[in-house]
Amino acid sequence: MKDIDELKKRVCEANKTLLASGLAALTWGNVSGLERKEGKMAIKPSGVDYEDLAADKIVVLSLASGEVCCGDLAPSSDTPTHLEIARAFTAAGAIVHTHSPYATAWAQTGMALPCLGTTHADTFCGDIPVCEQLTAEEAEKDYEANVGKAIVARFSDENLDPGRMPAVLVPGHGPFLWGETPEDAVKNAIVLEEVARMAHLTFSLRHECPRLPEYILKKHFNRKHGPDAYYGQKAT
Amino acid sequence: MKDIDELKKRVCEANKTLLASGLAALTWGNVSGLERKEGKMAIKPSGVDYEDLAADKIVVLSLASGEVCCGDLAPSSDTPTHLEIARAFTAAGAIVHTHSPYATAWAQTGMALPCLGTTHADTFCGDIPVCEQLTAEEAEKDYEANVGKAIVARFSDENLDPGRMPAVLVPGHGPFLWGETPEDAVKNAIVLEEVARMAHLTFSLRHECPRLPEYILKKHFNRKHGPDAYYGQKAT
Amino acid sequence: MKDIDELKKRVCEANKTLLASGLAALTWGNVSGLERKEGKMAIKPSGVDYEDLAADKIVVLSLASGEVCCGDLAPSSDTPTHLEIARAFTAAGAIVHTHSPYATAWAQTGMALPCLGTTHADTFCGDIPVCEQLTAEEAEKDYEANVGKAIVARFSDENLDPGRMPAVLVPGHGPFLWGETPEDAVKNAIVLEEVARMAHLTFSLRHECPRLPEYILKKHFNRKHGPDAYYGQKAT
Amino acid sequence: MKDIDELKKRVCEANKTLLASGLAALTWGNVSGLERKEGKMAIKPSGVDYEDLAADKIVVLSLASGEVCCGDLAPSSDTPTHLEIARAFTAAGAIVHTHSPYATAWAQTGMALPCLGTTHADTFCGDIPVCEQLTAEEAEKDYEANVGKAIVARFSDENLDPGRMPAVLVPGHGPFLWGETPEDAVKNAIVLEEVARMAHLTFSLRHECPRLPEYILKKHFNRKHGPDAYYGQKAT
Repeated sequence: MKDIDELKKRVCEANKTLLASGLAALTWGNVSGLERKEGKMAIKPSGVDYEDLAADKIVVLSLASGEVCCGDLAPSSDTPTHLEIARAFTAAGAIVHTHSPYATAWAQTGMALPCLGTTHADTFCGDIPVCEQLTAEEAEKDYEANVGKAIVARFSDENLDPGRMPAVLVPGHGPFLWGETPEDAVKNAIVLEEVARMAHLTFSLRHECPRLPEYILKKHFNRKHGPDAYYGQKAT
Repeated sequence: MKDIDELKKRVCEANKTLLASGLAALTWGNVSGLERKEGKMAIKPSGVDYEDLAADKIVVLSLASGEVCCGDLAPSSDTPTHLEIARAFTAAGAIVHTHSPYATAWAQTGMALPCLGTTHADTFCGDIPVCEQLTAEEAEKDYEANVGKAIVARFSDENLDPGRMPAVLVPGHGPFLWGETPEDAVKNAIVLEEVARMAHLTFSLRHECPRLPEYILKKHFNRKHGPDAYYGQKAT
Repeated sequence: MKDIDELKKRVCEANKTLLASGLAALTWGNVSGLERKEGKMAIKPSGVDYEDLAADKIVVLSLASGEVCCGDLAPSSDTPTHLEIARAFTAAGAIVHTHSPYATAWAQTGMALPCLGTTHADTFCGDIPVCEQLTAEEAEKDYEANVGKAIVARFSDENLDPGRMPAVLVPGHGPFLWGETPEDAVKNAIVLEEVARMAHLTFSLRHECPRLPEYILKKHFNRKHGPDAYYGQKAT
Repeated sequence: MKDIDELKKRVCEANKTLLASGLAALTWGNVSGLERKEGKMAIKPSGVDYEDLAADKIVVLSLASGEVCCGDLAPSSDTPTHLEIARAFTAAGAIVHTHSPYATAWAQTGMALPCLGTTHADTFCGDIPVCEQLTAEEAEKDYEANVGKAIVARFSDENLDPGRMPAVLVPGHGPFLWGETPEDAVKNAIVLEEVARMAHLTFSLRHECPRLPEYILKKHFNRKHGPDAYYGQKAT
């Protein structure tokens, strides 16, 4: 269980970072982390203030069944969404949901967040997709699981690689992101909010704005990711 | 009088929270709290800086007559508005008025603040209504009481439930909110400012923006409020 | 000279408040104060960082001649503008100039800042006027004095009362404000920036936005100013 | 080597200022400094957090060859851009690149940042130019050096004086700036972000906005720069 204890600490810290980095007001956001060898997910308890979070309040569930296996508190109400994403995107080690204002504004428009610059391309290899709005039937029963299914369906329909596009917008709701670790996933959420803000500023200056050429987009993404990356220091 | 002393402390703290949370600059905002068993309202004194507030400066009035029964200072000039709201919305335990910038901008447009997302729906069950602008006659005499009457009339005319819609915009002026306690009412003011900002960002990206479907709105509101709520921890 | 020493202290503090309140970045803003009995103006030295200001660095000039009578440093390059305003608006005890972003944006549009709400009306009795842009000749020689003359001409042409309208926008430049004391003038600058921001937010939501009715404007201004004011505590 | 040690300290501090002044999030920005007598450039290492920077981590390269002559870390991936600028603009003593949000938004529009006011004219003698977007071939090979060449070409084509226009926008990317010292260059970046913000606010109020008259632009720039400057204190 040492790995789980370590995971709970990191998930706790990552949740607190949402508040510190301005991504989440009140209790609006949650981070989960995965221990895939043990088939477990650790996630924020529902409705608990970030200031009151501690590692021992993080809830641990079975990734397969969703049943709580450790912790006295109820898990985040968004847990079924996290579970659907975690089951489908098997390279993800952590998932984040926020209501950060600029990303949420894009989600509320129902439009994909276009790649307008290299700040975006350094982290996200293309436009940030929007999944379908749920039907009334999908919202009525298993709402949160159906949000997750709509996300997975969008990636499957458009043949998107969740390793190169670690973000999605749920229309009328907000963003979900993922990464290899809780720290990565939160960093992706910080970058998404920043590029959502830059795209907002750009659109309000020039609505018919040029897209970043595909070859610059690829150049920047591949400068930081994959076998030919040359940004940063070589690991030693 | 123990209850009144406790109320004065909480009303004092809630007023200070307006400044700390960025909802009020200078002296632009006020919180009142109600002790309905004793028929009393406690409210911020007029024009006093938040830094200089202390529980013993909070003014206590008769809810029925509006007459000051305790305190050396003059009550907020908006007191008659608070009294009208308190008398009509009998479940409210506290009332807040601010000039927070995004909510005030919506009030200045004269348009209702539309429900564009789940952040809004989690707290407010529908669009935030705007009351009627006062006539010259209504502004001339008993101005502040007439603002309160216009608010109450809007809820009555549109058959709105103040328990499910704890906010209103006064056109050309700003928002009024309420809640069960001073802390609740201030929390509602924080949420309103945040969703007013998100709606502003959304509108400037896409003016003809989709509304949140009614079934998602209801799903989210009822997830947090009422008998079928399942957000947060079960009270023990 | 005791009054002058006191004035230098207050002018120094008021200049530092520009930085603390976010109205001025770098060295972009200046406050002057007047000791009319002695015919003196105290003003910020040119190009000195706010952090480095001290009362003994404040420059004192003759209001009549503009000649420095005390201090080793050169006065603000905007001094001739302050002098023109001080000579014409004889009730003013202090003058402020800033490049605060929202007020400057309105100045850059060349449009008056319309009164859209009570936050504005509580301090400014009408739209914030814009003076004329200088001609090439006026800019070439005595530029800063001619800015001041353009301000005074606008108030004279439109029969504006500087006591009820303590602000003006210089097109393509930024705002000038005044008040009875250095603290009042800076407070007016804080309010102007806030209402400029609210008007900006309102315009971006609804370009054809309703003006605040004249009778509400007057009601709010007179609630706080003049013989029938009833806001705040009675002076004792 | 004393000069180089001093330069590394100042370049280190200037990089940290990017974070402190809000110009750079995460690791998005870099400052280089030049010791032209020794033919050296000192620059931020690639991908290192600002908090972890220290003078001994600053990388020193040959200005002529671009080869690292001191330091264990890889230099910023933007180094070839800095080198091209440094070789062409021989009066520059330091270069800055940021992704600050307002300047980046203008870069993303592909439009020059127009001079709308005196805040702009005090530092930049005209509109901030945008260089050409690279072709696919230019992006494929020697991408970063080609960005630098596109910047230099724009100044050459339009006969711009880098001493009077210490800034450029790279389309779809962000700004580059320069100055006599690392502190000057960072100060120019702070001013650019502020005027980019003011221009954004102005455009969203009035899209067909008046330009600052050329004679006011020149008046303000020359008030602060060149032989007839009269802003600030005379050097003694």
